[in-house]
Amino acid sequence: MNLLDKIQFPADLRKLKKDELPQLAKDLRSFIIDVVSVKEGHLGASLGVVELTIALHYIFNTPDDKLVWDVGHQAYGHKILTGRKDIFATNRQMGGISGFPNRKESEYDDFGTGHSSTSISAVLGMAIASKLKGEPERNHIAVVGDASIASGMAFEGLNHAGVTDANILVVLNDNAIGIDPSVGALKKYLTNVKKGTAKDENIFECLNFDYAGPLDGHDLPLLLEELERLKSVPGPKLLHIITTKGKGLQKAEENQVTYHAPGRFDRLTGELQKKPDSKEPPKYQDVFGHTLVELAKSNPNIVGITPAMPTGSSLKFLMNEIPDRAFDVGIAEQHAVTLAAGMATQGLIPFCNIYSTFLQRAYDQIIHDVALQNLPVVFCLDRAGLVGQDGATHHGVYDIAYLSCIPNLIIFAPMNEQELRNIMYTAQMGIGQPIAIRYPRGKGVMLSWRTPFEKIEIGTSQMIKKGTKIAVLSLGHIGNLVKEIIPELPSSEQIGHFNMRFVKPLDKKQLHHIFSHYSHIITIEDGCKLGGFGSSIMNFANENNYLAKIDVLGIEDRFMEHGTIDQLHKLAGLDGESIKQYINKTLNEL
Amino acid sequence: MNLLDKIQFPADLRKLKKDELPQLAKDLRSFIIDVVSVKEGHLGASLGVVELTIALHYIFNTPDDKLVWDVGHQAYGHKILTGRKDIFATNRQMGGISGFPNRKESEYDDFGTGHSSTSISAVLGMAIASKLKGEPERNHIAVVGDASIASGMAFEGLNHAGVTDANILVVLNDNAIGIDPSVGALKKYLTNVKKGTAKDENIFECLNFDYAGPLDGHDLPLLLEELERLKSVPGPKLLHIITTKGKGLQKAEENQVTYHAPGRFDRLTGELQKKPDSKEPPKYQDVFGHTLVELAKSNPNIVGITPAMPTGSSLKFLMNEIPDRAFDVGIAEQHAVTLAAGMATQGLIPFCNIYSTFLQRAYDQIIHDVALQNLPVVFCLDRAGLVGQDGATHHGVYDIAYLSCIPNLIIFAPMNEQELRNIMYTAQMGIGQPIAIRYPRGKGVMLSWRTPFEKIEIGTSQMIKKGTKIAVLSLGHIGNLVKEIIPELPSSEQIGHFNMRFVKPLDKKQLHHIFSHYSHIITIEDGCKLGGFGSSIMNFANENNYLAKIDVLGIEDRFMEHGTIDQLHKLAGLDGESIKQYINKTLNEL
Repeated sequence: MNLLDKIQFPADLRKLKKDELPQLAKDLRSFIIDVVSVKEGHLGASLGVVELTIALHYIFNTPDDKLVWDVGHQAYGHKILTGRKDIFATNRQMGGISGFPNRKESEYDDFGTGHSSTSISAVLGMAIASKLKGEPERNHIAVVGDASIASGMAFEGLNHAGVTDANILVVLNDNAIGIDPSVGALKKYLTNVKKGTAKDENIFECLNFDYAGPLDGHDLPLLLEELERLKSVPGPKLLHIITTKGKGLQKAEENQVTYHAPGRFDRLTGELQKKPDSKEPPKYQDVFGHTLVELAKSNPNIVGITPAMPTGSSLKFLMNEIPDRAFDVGIAEQHAVTLAAGMATQGLIPFCNIYSTFLQRAYDQIIHDVALQNLPVVFCLDRAGLVGQDGATHHGVYDIAYLSCIPNLIIFAPMNEQELRNIMYTAQMGIGQPIAIRYPRGKGVMLSWRTPFEKIEIGTSQMIKKGTKIAVLSLGHIGNLVKEIIPELPSSEQIGHFNMRFVKPLDKKQLHHIFSHYSHIITIEDGCKLGGFGSSIMNFANENNYLAKIDVLGIEDRFMEHGTIDQLHKLAGLDGESIKQYINKTLNEL
Repeated sequence: MNLLDKIQFPADLRKLKKDELPQLAKDLRSFIIDVVSVKEGHLGASLGVVELTIALHYIFNTPDDKLVWDVGHQAYGHKILTGRKDIFATNRQMGGISGFPNRKESEYDDFGTGHSSTSISAVLGMAIASKLKGEPERNHIAVVGDASIASGMAFEGLNHAGVTDANILVVLNDNAIGIDPSVGALKKYLTNVKKGTAKDENIFECLNFDYAGPLDGHDLPLLLEELERLKSVPGPKLLHIITTKGKGLQKAEENQVTYHAPGRFDRLTGELQKKPDSKEPPKYQDVFGHTLVELAKSNPNIVGITPAMPTGSSLKFLMNEIPDRAFDVGIAEQHAVTLAAGMATQGLIPFCNIYSTFLQRAYDQIIHDVALQNLPVVFCLDRAGLVGQDGATHHGVYDIAYLSCIPNLIIFAPMNEQELRNIMYTAQMGIGQPIAIRYPRGKGVMLSWRTPFEKIEIGTSQMIKKGTKIAVLSLGHIGNLVKEIIPELPSSEQIGHFNMRFVKPLDKKQLHHIFSHYSHIITIEDGCKLGGFGSSIMNFANENNYLAKIDVLGIEDRFMEHGTIDQLHKLAGLDGESIKQYINKTLNEL
């Protein structure tokens, strides 16, 4: 008998006896492994909090009590126990459930997460609201990992909460790892606490939290007892639990970075499913990583910075080869950018690699610390554009818009591996101003991508194909698709194609040529239309009194959900077929 | 004999004997008071660190040793001792020195500041760079206040620094006040440290800093001794000093909020210079503050949030009248926004008041926590547009651009007090989505501004004056100027004027009318041109195949320096005379 079969909602869970819960934990863990081994997703984090998830829903009266999962990678067990067991296999698929907590999906998802360190602020807001509304006392719980709690925003939440009498419980899920191993002084301190070598006072007590723990987060009876006790402790409190990421699947426990999101694997052995050995172009991430190492070897001023994404961004390569010059600063985008600025004042050339969506966290620092002082920081914006299954919280589609208005900043999007390499090469030669290089998640297009370095003249574009009537202006990787489909069009000789690559400064010479020779312009970008690349072309045309019709293809003004990148591009009209049809229709109307 | 007369640079200072330094402190304090009493500026913070400033430049070998003043309000003494005594009277004036440290101004200003909490990251970057470059050991000092160190970004800097062996010294200048009194759990903890009631361990030692203090920051011999000692302590260290903001001017010590930037005052008595009693329109800030109180009295769901600017934003009015529902969360913009989001999930209507330039700190939270979840948070963006003497770090000119690309968000700029009141009234009625209301620093235009509330239909504009050829589309307060000058133009009957007020959603009906009836459009906004309001009008025209010429007036793509708002508007071509000339020229060319 599988106990999980009995449970659709936490109310069912609460009918179990306490001594049945360890069995349920086993069943839940198996269920997660069974589904994720086939359907893929974030494995390790959810395995690590199986006991916690059960204990929280058992002790607290969700959804009346409020529960927020920071980041949300660890919320699979929560989803399964709160009405989504039967659709859990649709996890992260288009039209299926989200890989993160999502308010639209369930009343048990009290706050949507995805980006880190928001949970304390969110539950504090809920707790204050509840008190103001005079509601009966209820509990507000934030589950936050040791990597996430070290981010500035979490500190701001703790600092405020500590002077309120808000009824909140922060569960610090300490597994000493985020996606990559945790870093920083707080992590070191927490390790001392676990070893019993920290001094008497407690950092959370300094912040006026009632501190409990550390305790074994896989010991269900202990967890239940402590949560039961904390339920009646008033005011802000923090429970420190120690867990193992990947708990219950040996390989996942042993290789926590790999098994954060392992792709398909054997549900019994944990063995990763081998991908067929095929010659494929490299990922942009790896081109970045290898190229940075290559450049750093000959330019001693180069350093690399990542806020907690060494593996995902491939900055790992530099960390391995030249550890002194590669910095994983933890989930601290703000600090990462200003650290880079400080380094740049002293003549270093920092390559600051941040996912497009996470750079939103450091927006002020780009303006105030880097661009205003015109410091030559090289921003590498990884995962720009639609990112796929991570969905709405993670799409990197606003960067062009939010960066375009910043003076002094160059914005570049490489069409392929060679352009990424060459712009990195160019950037470290000393361009005297900051630059943002945006590239997508996933594969490039070149099998032989280790091309010799060539300097790219700032503000120059490339004519890929001459035409007569329509000029297609593409930005970045999507230009490959355009290049591929144009020859397949009936009147392809009428269509010109330009790889514009610089959003800023625009290649005005080329644009004057284009607007003088083509009557119709189509711009294509993997980013939001409002304020994006197409918008800047429109500005140019208006300023120069060109009257050519401009069609802007890009992401409409709405949040895009999750799905494969291909599915999402189709949805956005940015797949080959849609673009073809669009150009054809335009041709026919000329 | 005034000792300050002898000093142009720190090298001169270092020639003094230690026992001469208290006299120098006296002279420096008098000098600051003399100049600021007439020329205005930030008084209290600089008076509080006179001894520290002298001690730092005396003990450390600036500019070889690096020194960064967090925020920079307190850097007047530093400026005066580092070559800028003779031009100090030009402080904050157009063409004069900046009110903040500025790399362009002096080699002693190692990092430009203005926004809070950047100093630790910046000096850490410098220290790491120095080590990598194999330079002789030098010191890197960040001076940061107790309000600033409680911001998330500072924590991120400490958390990273604590696991390095970087030679940095953080001087925590604890005066228990930022611009307004400090708040939060860390402040409470620091107070306990000062009282000797904190437990043994130290929060900064938890983060692996060598902690020294607390000591009296006005006791020069003590300061000199301790800094001398710390100079040879390797690795990250923190010196906690206690100072009094406004030290040396009794009224400034007693009224620290008022004397943060008191305007003109009597240099001997400290008495504020009374402004002549004239009937003037209120400040937008006060209209916001009073209106919020008015609305909150009848709508129990309204709450107000400010990140450390209760006085500046006038949220103070709500704090005084309904303290339970007004929250000063400290310098924590990220937390402020997500706290608001958490409150909104529970049915509250948070008015989150953040200066336009500081909202850059919470950009991700607006997208990820508010807009994506479509929560009805009301953002009140104070000090939008050019702000005057605070200069480049503080101008609120990017908000329209960085907010326009965010789905679900309404963006509104009131033309006057009445529109500000009415949009606030409308926002709290339940519009079901977030809204950003941007208004400038300073005075409105209405003497009788307490008008009865009227709902504003979302996405509607106002025709102010009909015309025949040119339509001027203004956004926000600057519309008053347009309204004033049009009748003064020779062919004013040809000029129409529309107060567009909504950047998003645009009033498409009105725009269709405008583009059908006018051959030439001029847009005017107090914000950056790239991606701004004019840009959205261009988008509209392009999408709808309108061919009217569109001229966009706004801030060009460069950082604007400091000066009076009038001077800066003139520089940007946004003063009455420039706009008049522009319209006239356009008319003549038709």
